[in-house]
Amino acid sequence: MRIDVLSLFPEMFSGVFGSSILKHASESGHVAFHVTDFREYTDNKHKKVDDYPYGGGAGMVLKAQPIFDAVEALSKKSNQQPRIVMLCPQGERYNQKKAEEFAKEKHIILLCGHYEGYDERVRQFLVTDEVSIGDYVLTGGELGAMVIADSVTRLLPGVLGNDESAVTDSYSTGLLEHPHYTRPADFRGMVVPDTLLSGHHANIEEWRHFESLKRTWERRPDLLEGRTLTAKEKQWIESFGKE
Amino acid sequence: MRIDVLSLFPEMFSGVFGSSILKHASESGHVAFHVTDFREYTDNKHKKVDDYPYGGGAGMVLKAQPIFDAVEALSKKSNQQPRIVMLCPQGERYNQKKAEEFAKEKHIILLCGHYEGYDERVRQFLVTDEVSIGDYVLTGGELGAMVIADSVTRLLPGVLGNDESAVTDSYSTGLLEHPHYTRPADFRGMVVPDTLLSGHHANIEEWRHFESLKRTWERRPDLLEGRTLTAKEKQWIESFGKE
Repeated sequence: MRIDVLSLFPEMFSGVFGSSILKHASESGHVAFHVTDFREYTDNKHKKVDDYPYGGGAGMVLKAQPIFDAVEALSKKSNQQPRIVMLCPQGERYNQKKAEEFAKEKHIILLCGHYEGYDERVRQFLVTDEVSIGDYVLTGGELGAMVIADSVTRLLPGVLGNDESAVTDSYSTGLLEHPHYTRPADFRGMVVPDTLLSGHHANIEEWRHFESLKRTWERRPDLLEGRTLTAKEKQWIESFGKE
Repeated sequence: MRIDVLSLFPEMFSGVFGSSILKHASESGHVAFHVTDFREYTDNKHKKVDDYPYGGGAGMVLKAQPIFDAVEALSKKSNQQPRIVMLCPQGERYNQKKAEEFAKEKHIILLCGHYEGYDERVRQFLVTDEVSIGDYVLTGGELGAMVIADSVTRLLPGVLGNDESAVTDSYSTGLLEHPHYTRPADFRGMVVPDTLLSGHHANIEEWRHFESLKRTWERRPDLLEGRTLTAKEKQWIESFGKE
C-alpha cells in the first residue's frame, strides 16, 4: 500500500513513521509512506497557500489550487484510483471499521489542514472521504493522519507478528480486555489474584471471562447491546447489578 | 504547565513537539514537554520492562516496577500533585471537555503502553485517569499522548494568537463550521457562491448561519438535540427535511 500525506509540516511525521511497527512495515515493503509539503505545489510566487475568506471574517482559508495540483500529481504515483481523505472536524468519525475499509485500498492520500479552513471546493470536488478522529480540537490534521496511517498499516497482511496480532485479537471478542498481571506476585504489598497463580486453566479462563464482562459492563455497556449472552453471562450481569 | 510523557519510543515525539504551535508554546514557556523512556527506570539487569502474563496466554505485560518508579520520580519535578493519565483502549473517551479539564492542571504525566497490556496494579493504584482517543486500534499510546498534549496546550492562556483562536471559537457556536472560500472566484469552472461575493454583510451572515445549520443537521444531528432553536432555524430545518 502507498500512503501519501499532504501537510505544511512534513517534519512532524518522521518520528512516528520511523519507529516501531510503522518503521518495520515500511522497511519490509508492506507500506510506503510519502510526506509532501503541498506548499511546493502553489503557483503563488510568494509560496502562499492560503488567502482571506470571501465574505470576510477572521482566519485564513487554504487555497484550492495547491491542494488540487498536489493531489493530482500524487494520484499518478500509483495505478489505482486513490482514496483522498481529508482530516477535518466535521468529518465522519473514524473507527476500526473505517480502518478495515481503508486497509483494502492500494493507495490513500491523507490531506492535513492546519488550523485553517479548506476552500470548500476541495471538499466538494476533490476528496472521497472526510474523517475526524474524535471530538476534540487539534492544531491540524497531522495527528489524524498518523492515527489513520498507524491503524491501517497494522491491519495489512504480514505486518504484525504473532505476538502482536494475538493482542489485537482480544478486541474481536467484543468485550474489553481482562486485567493482566506479571511478576512479581507481590509488588509493594499489591498482590496478584490467587486464581492467576493457581495453574488451574479452566478457573483462569473463567476468571478472565468474568473480568472482561465486568469491565465491559462498567465502562462500555454499549458493547453489550447487540451481544447474544450465554446463561452464565446473564447470571454474572445480574450479580453486577446487585453490587 | 509541565507535560511528561512516559514511552518506550521517545523518538516518536520530537517531530510533533518541535513543530508549529506546540513548538512556539514550548519556546515561549507556556508549556514544558519532557519525554522519558521508562526503560531507564527498570531494576531488571537486562533492561527488560515486560514479562509473561500470570495465568498464561499470548502477549507480554508491562511490569509495574519501572512505571511506578518513573512516575514517582517525575512527580517530584513539580510542586503539584500531577494527573497521571494512562492511554488505553478501555479508557474513558477523550473529548474537548476532558481537554479543558486537563488544561487547568499544572502537571500531567501521560503514560504510553505499546501493544502490550499494563500490569493491572498500575491501573488500580497509580493512575488517576484512563483515556482512549477513539474506537480504533493503535500500536501504542504515543499518538494518544500527542493528541492530549496538542489539544490541552492550545487551551493554555496566551498560546494561541488571535487568528488561531478565532478559528477555534467557531466550535463554540455549537454548530459545525460553514463552508469557506478564497480566491479565485472561479477555479477551473468551480465557482464561489454569489452571496459571498456580494459584499452584503447581513446576507453573508445569514448564508453562513444557514450553511452551518444545514451541515450540522446532515452530519451531526446529535449536536442539535440540546439546542434552543430560533424561529428561523426551525423553519430552515423543516425545509431540509423536505429536500
